[in-house]
Amino acid sequence: MLERIVNFGGMSGGPPDRQQALKTSETASKAPGILLRHALANRFGFRLSGGQIASMCKVPGFMSLVIPFVFRPHSRENWDAVLAEELKHIGTIKPFDALSDTERRAARFAIVANPDPQDVARLPNLEWVQSLWAGVERLTAELPADGPRIVRLADPQMAVTMSEAVLAWTLYLHRDMPRYARQQSERRWKEHALITPDQRRIGILGLGALGQAAALRLRANGFRVSGWSRSPKSVAGVDCFHGQNGLEEVLARSGILVLLMPLTSETRGLVNAGLLARLPKGASLINFARGPIVDDTALIEALDAGHLSHAVLDVFSVEPLPAGHPYWSHPAVTVLPHISAPTLAKSAVAILAENIAAYLKTGNIPDSVDRKRGY
Amino acid sequence: MLERIVNFGGMSGGPPDRQQALKTSETASKAPGILLRHALANRFGFRLSGGQIASMCKVPGFMSLVIPFVFRPHSRENWDAVLAEELKHIGTIKPFDALSDTERRAARFAIVANPDPQDVARLPNLEWVQSLWAGVERLTAELPADGPRIVRLADPQMAVTMSEAVLAWTLYLHRDMPRYARQQSERRWKEHALITPDQRRIGILGLGALGQAAALRLRANGFRVSGWSRSPKSVAGVDCFHGQNGLEEVLARSGILVLLMPLTSETRGLVNAGLLARLPKGASLINFARGPIVDDTALIEALDAGHLSHAVLDVFSVEPLPAGHPYWSHPAVTVLPHISAPTLAKSAVAILAENIAAYLKTGNIPDSVDRKRGY
Repeated sequence: MLERIVNFGGMSGGPPDRQQALKTSETASKAPGILLRHALANRFGFRLSGGQIASMCKVPGFMSLVIPFVFRPHSRENWDAVLAEELKHIGTIKPFDALSDTERRAARFAIVANPDPQDVARLPNLEWVQSLWAGVERLTAELPADGPRIVRLADPQMAVTMSEAVLAWTLYLHRDMPRYARQQSERRWKEHALITPDQRRIGILGLGALGQAAALRLRANGFRVSGWSRSPKSVAGVDCFHGQNGLEEVLARSGILVLLMPLTSETRGLVNAGLLARLPKGASLINFARGPIVDDTALIEALDAGHLSHAVLDVFSVEPLPAGHPYWSHPAVTVLPHISAPTLAKSAVAILAENIAAYLKTGNIPDSVDRKRGY
Repeated sequence: MLERIVNFGGMSGGPPDRQQALKTSETASKAPGILLRHALANRFGFRLSGGQIASMCKVPGFMSLVIPFVFRPHSRENWDAVLAEELKHIGTIKPFDALSDTERRAARFAIVANPDPQDVARLPNLEWVQSLWAGVERLTAELPADGPRIVRLADPQMAVTMSEAVLAWTLYLHRDMPRYARQQSERRWKEHALITPDQRRIGILGLGALGQAAALRLRANGFRVSGWSRSPKSVAGVDCFHGQNGLEEVLARSGILVLLMPLTSETRGLVNAGLLARLPKGASLINFARGPIVDDTALIEALDAGHLSHAVLDVFSVEPLPAGHPYWSHPAVTVLPHISAPTLAKSAVAILAENIAAYLKTGNIPDSVDRKRGY
């Protein structure tokens, strides 16, 4: 079975100039990473030995495969080091600035993290870019429509982590933690009536992979959940709505409203004064999506007026949240530093390795963003 | 089938002086409460009409059945009113002080809430008392060993609520909420590494109905759970231990330790300096059991020394927690006003009605406390 893989250079249906693209690493370690082995095993349905993968990566006569990594400085994670180590059996990770002219022309795909579009444009033969996370609003805004295809990170582990975050901060609101924290600061002993989860109605805007996982997790823990999405969706045990009328329905029944939709031209500023006014009095908001979806002024007004009781915000229009922003000290706002569902290097890199290996083998590009709808 | 119930006065095997005990209410409403109907249907396997239950409660020639309610003043809930309303189809709830001598002698059972033992002793023919909640350490301490049997409230709804509380405050610690709250107060934007729940080890001391429900809920949400109980227990997916060696095992693997055991002579002061020292460095504690299980001085020392990172305390040796207590202002302590799993009147009263109706029918006393072990 090994030939199916080591002979990828000779397969038909791949991208043009395949042999150039399929240069393999001269420096590949003799003991390939477990992650890659796992990713390949998942992909191809059988497990390769370390030696077999090393052979894959050492087809004689090929140059080292260079994988461009295009990113903005000051990305929070030390991704280049992680990628270099974990993908070394496929190729050599090179930051954009270190690429030679030949390497730039040879690149058929690149790994990107909030890249400068000028840099991406200087890779003229790119077919696709792999994002290190699910939110790609900068890429869709900054890359030309006829540019390389944009592949979001679709990491099942991220959906699990996000559903955990939604459950955690839903319970935080459901069990009145902000109020009891305030009482503690006042040395006040006072219990408040308990609401059972079947009486607590949660609305989720956005029913993609993250929204669906969150909805199911909330259901499994007894909450009543409704969800809203652009196109019709069906999620077991969840009341699903779509379209403008559907949005009204979900808002009217959301004691806690959770934002999990992508940032697009349609969702930018969607959560404004008019939308907040349609939530039940005393409702709470959780934004685990993107900052610009929320009109900050309208949110603060709704909190100050007592129409909303609390907001848990993990994302902001400017991050890090500027030190002078009123959210920091607002008694009804919980500020989180974008931690609801961080990309976990371990699982993310396994998925990257799988996507790249599959592309090298078959020429198929993973599912990519619909540039018109923006996700 | 109705005769099986309306003829309870003539059944054998019941308590002595049954006819006296089974006086039925002349004032019973003609439209009995849904709760009672539901409770009786659960118990007897068929659903009675309102008229049938009204008939049950109107056997001619009997005096009104008086149900004593013995409680300490200043109980938090307005229980006497709730009980009077919801049990009116079985009998008349009378506070201890309102009972005539005849009624005191006639009483075979009573509903109690932290009663004064002197009051209970003045009901000389009591066979059993029904507690309004699960924790009965005052009753076991204050009623003589040969006194009436003590029936704890075993409310499945309470186990659900407690498991939700354990999950909520486990996630509170797991997702670093206390740390992020501190950072917000300092306007500091800093993310911390995320630990997946399979790397987070939770230990539960006490595997009764509440502990088991909590363990299963944590498992269902991905945590690694071990549990410890006095006698051997088996809970699906949970590493169960018992005895002194078992306790050491659970402590060594508890990043978060949850207390859910009853307060007995064996558990009083169990969580002392020696026990806390055996937890991994940086561990956290959740006490949803009873205050006197924890040595407060030892806990504060372990927090101050940095051996423990946080404590969530819902119960205290003195409640309400005195205003001068150091817990209130300790940065590593979350103080809650005994709200983890309050008795919900609705479900509790349904269970009381069921227990009492079954006793009236069969003379059987519900499962009661083993006075030697204390629960």
